[in-house]
Amino acid sequence: MAHLTDQEIASQASIQPIEEIAKKAGIPNEALEMYGKYKAKVDIHKVEGDEKSSKIVLVSAMNPTPAGEGKSTCTVGLSDAFNKLGKNVMVALREPSLGPVMGIKGGATGGGHAQVLPMEEINLHFNGDLHAITTANNALAAFIDNHIHQGNQLNIDPRRVTWKRVLDMNDRALRNVTIGLGGPAQGVPREDGFDITVASEIMAVLCLSNDIEDLKEKLSQIVIGYTYDRKPVTVAQLEVQGALALLLKEAIKPNLVQTMEGTPALIHGGPFANIAHGCNSVIATNTARKLSDIVVTECGFGSDLGGEKFMDIKARKAGFEPDAIVLVATIRALKMNGGVAKEDLGEANVDALKVGIKNLEKHIENARKFGVEPVVALNDFVTDTDEERQFVLDYCNDLGVRIALTKVWEKGGEGGVELAEKVLEVLDQPQNFKFLYEDEMPIADKINTIVTEVYGGSGVVLTDKAKKQIAEIEKNGWGHFPVCMAKTQYSLSDNPKLLGRPEGFEVTVREVIAKAGAGFVVALTGDIMTMPGLPKVPSAVHMDVDKDGNSKGLF
Amino acid sequence: MAHLTDQEIASQASIQPIEEIAKKAGIPNEALEMYGKYKAKVDIHKVEGDEKSSKIVLVSAMNPTPAGEGKSTCTVGLSDAFNKLGKNVMVALREPSLGPVMGIKGGATGGGHAQVLPMEEINLHFNGDLHAITTANNALAAFIDNHIHQGNQLNIDPRRVTWKRVLDMNDRALRNVTIGLGGPAQGVPREDGFDITVASEIMAVLCLSNDIEDLKEKLSQIVIGYTYDRKPVTVAQLEVQGALALLLKEAIKPNLVQTMEGTPALIHGGPFANIAHGCNSVIATNTARKLSDIVVTECGFGSDLGGEKFMDIKARKAGFEPDAIVLVATIRALKMNGGVAKEDLGEANVDALKVGIKNLEKHIENARKFGVEPVVALNDFVTDTDEERQFVLDYCNDLGVRIALTKVWEKGGEGGVELAEKVLEVLDQPQNFKFLYEDEMPIADKINTIVTEVYGGSGVVLTDKAKKQIAEIEKNGWGHFPVCMAKTQYSLSDNPKLLGRPEGFEVTVREVIAKAGAGFVVALTGDIMTMPGLPKVPSAVHMDVDKDGNSKGLF
Repeated sequence: MAHLTDQEIASQASIQPIEEIAKKAGIPNEALEMYGKYKAKVDIHKVEGDEKSSKIVLVSAMNPTPAGEGKSTCTVGLSDAFNKLGKNVMVALREPSLGPVMGIKGGATGGGHAQVLPMEEINLHFNGDLHAITTANNALAAFIDNHIHQGNQLNIDPRRVTWKRVLDMNDRALRNVTIGLGGPAQGVPREDGFDITVASEIMAVLCLSNDIEDLKEKLSQIVIGYTYDRKPVTVAQLEVQGALALLLKEAIKPNLVQTMEGTPALIHGGPFANIAHGCNSVIATNTARKLSDIVVTECGFGSDLGGEKFMDIKARKAGFEPDAIVLVATIRALKMNGGVAKEDLGEANVDALKVGIKNLEKHIENARKFGVEPVVALNDFVTDTDEERQFVLDYCNDLGVRIALTKVWEKGGEGGVELAEKVLEVLDQPQNFKFLYEDEMPIADKINTIVTEVYGGSGVVLTDKAKKQIAEIEKNGWGHFPVCMAKTQYSLSDNPKLLGRPEGFEVTVREVIAKAGAGFVVALTGDIMTMPGLPKVPSAVHMDVDKDGNSKGLF
Repeated sequence: MAHLTDQEIASQASIQPIEEIAKKAGIPNEALEMYGKYKAKVDIHKVEGDEKSSKIVLVSAMNPTPAGEGKSTCTVGLSDAFNKLGKNVMVALREPSLGPVMGIKGGATGGGHAQVLPMEEINLHFNGDLHAITTANNALAAFIDNHIHQGNQLNIDPRRVTWKRVLDMNDRALRNVTIGLGGPAQGVPREDGFDITVASEIMAVLCLSNDIEDLKEKLSQIVIGYTYDRKPVTVAQLEVQGALALLLKEAIKPNLVQTMEGTPALIHGGPFANIAHGCNSVIATNTARKLSDIVVTECGFGSDLGGEKFMDIKARKAGFEPDAIVLVATIRALKMNGGVAKEDLGEANVDALKVGIKNLEKHIENARKFGVEPVVALNDFVTDTDEERQFVLDYCNDLGVRIALTKVWEKGGEGGVELAEKVLEVLDQPQNFKFLYEDEMPIADKINTIVTEVYGGSGVVLTDKAKKQIAEIEKNGWGHFPVCMAKTQYSLSDNPKLLGRPEGFEVTVREVIAKAGAGFVVALTGDIMTMPGLPKVPSAVHMDVDKDGNSKGLF
């Protein structure tokens, strides 16, 4: 099967009318708002159920190769495996961003026989959520520049407007721009820049809101910049939280689709896992909890990034906790963490595995630090050898951690049954979930705790700028916010070249920014890209659509 | 009733499930793609019917006041009147742009008891069409800047990139920008600017396409700029017409909604009536023709702008012709054209009417120049006096043109029955439709013909730049394109202060630009705004949404 693309496999799959999937999930017909035949938005006020009895399985990972380790694929496949075992299960995923789809990534809806459908519509405009977020973000930007232009009653310092415009596109030429040129009738000139939509604070706000009222409250607290005398200026002062919430009133409803094996899937929200928290929406996760006994959900990158943020940001704000953690690992990524170059990952190399496995070991420890027992999912690749597989299985057995070989790409749910069974063992045990730090801990200590406990570093170095920003943040009353680390996904440290399980390293935080709407503080390490660029040959040049609307080139 | 807002009236109206409306329109269920309960996209390949036997009623207008004369309201009301008379009728309208909705205009879906529903969703994101156009437009911009950055194999001159980015927002600060700043890794610096989405050539292309294949062909011909040696560079050379068409594959399907009286309505496409042709899509008009005996459709501004463009651009490219023209007039606009200041329009003034009526007279003559008999719709306002009404009725009777007083804002279809009956008289007569000019006429002569015949001017002045551009356009093989005039809507001339029926004026064309994808040539007169600004207090500050998703502030 390996010679078929994901899109070809998806196009051969049978798909059920979304009403059937809704019925299976226990969603009443009157809660469904159809978007074509295979997608629907769900009116959460019309969904009944008790969230408390549901179990959450969080799918995280080790530090990946640039190609990724198939975390979404494993998440979908695991939910299909539970489905096969007769469990009442839903999967809750993030929405793909169009920028990477047009650029380098192709689709982002799982792979092989573990995909969500209809893959092409989910990969393109889906149900308009990202467009609504783009619109609300840019409406706010227009309101800000218009306010400054029309007399600037709030005394906003144009040099200190922190709110940026966004597009759901990879467009490096928009990273740094000057706007308002052309004379007095054309606005006030200032330096500005565009981020990709998934980096918008509005995306994070939408994903952390419980309902429209909560959304409006969070929107009103967004800080868009500072006055000439350095006071924060909020959306509430511009009086546009109502208009922004109005623009988001459909986007806040979770989207129901299905896996290739008919497991109900909610796909909703997709904040960047670097500048934001990298998890799907609280509303979707809670809706899935109401409806099913088991919710399988993923978070961005490894346990050091999306994993830590799921616990310390999403779970903290939503008031739920994970009941099991799946750590996706691949022999390729283990070898890369053992020092093998990208082009040599196809060759057997048990010696490198012995070094690289320490990376996985740290992620296992990380899960346990949060009081939740992990299960390792060894995601099978055709290049893996029996000897390599056996080494990893033995290592985990010796370490006393559950591990299952998964073949969901090739076999769908059937290839994840062993994994599902081991996760069920964990779900049958009581867990002792705890946050890494409490709200009251000072910001600098929170950062230090994450670095030493989760990354395994020796400590944190704060630049003078970061120190000053932390002081201002605490003065502004935001010291109780959790910290959202912006860090490379390739290493446990802040240096993408430091693979395996580095020790004794310090992490440098160069900037600390409050996101008062989302309710977290972003600590920036290294160079974090909030607007990607396109490659020399974008995947767009391979895309097409025929006269009947059939698409091509979404891998 | 006049104290209720349009939104309040709309929220009290009863709305039928869209399947019922589709059934009434003769659209089979399998052609419907639901977007919630009250909106659907229509798969035109699954719609049967013969376009040839249908009649087209084009609703145009005299030169308006800044508040508009209620053309959309009259269009909706007239379709409801036909419905009341038992006719098989559909209405085909343009989609509202979000920028003006958030800025000054509020909703754009008719008014009073002549509205389309669901008004708030049509006014907000609707079915994602404008977002898809924004995305395709900006994807193309990113592909262009990426091409230049990655080696510029096509030798594109960054100073001569004519393709601009767009947002569906009123944002004056984006009119003139510089992009690509920040060093070699951040793209190639150049001057740029943003238009509002409805001014994108992709909007015009989508509205003039017959199907996806035609769309792709037109997209491939779009000129994005020029090489260092002044050769045009097309989308085909960038090889992304397939990706752009893929992004538009849902947007190209017309949207089915309903009027407050249950008349089936197709709302699809909405190009600017200044920089583009200002008519809804050919696909929607043709689908309505397949399904109904009478199609009521509107075009932007007066017979001098959208009216002329409907005939010479849309009808020419689509291969159909209007069978009757309705000219919406108001006593307020007639008085303004008679020299009355905006703040005094509420006062009776028959003397001013006697001068201003000459403006209407010219629009009547214009309709007849195209060989189509007009009917004047005198759209009633509460401030109109009986004496004023009688003057206008008598004037039109003396002139030998049909006129009907319409009260559709107050009474819905019932208030438009007299108008509908008079339009039916015209539809029963054979018309002698003809274009104003033939394809072969040189560009300068086409412009001159429009100015002298339709505007009533003495001739055209071409700047040196315009002359040079025309020469290049004809050299590039685009001389057969029709001309799309960019002109103020307030006057028959290019001077917004020259009201009534000016004579002896010359029109200055300062620039002539080929839109090779849309297949027309834009002739720019005066200052044409392609990115509006927000007012000091945008209508957004009055908008809100409650916890159940009910909206407020869309007037």
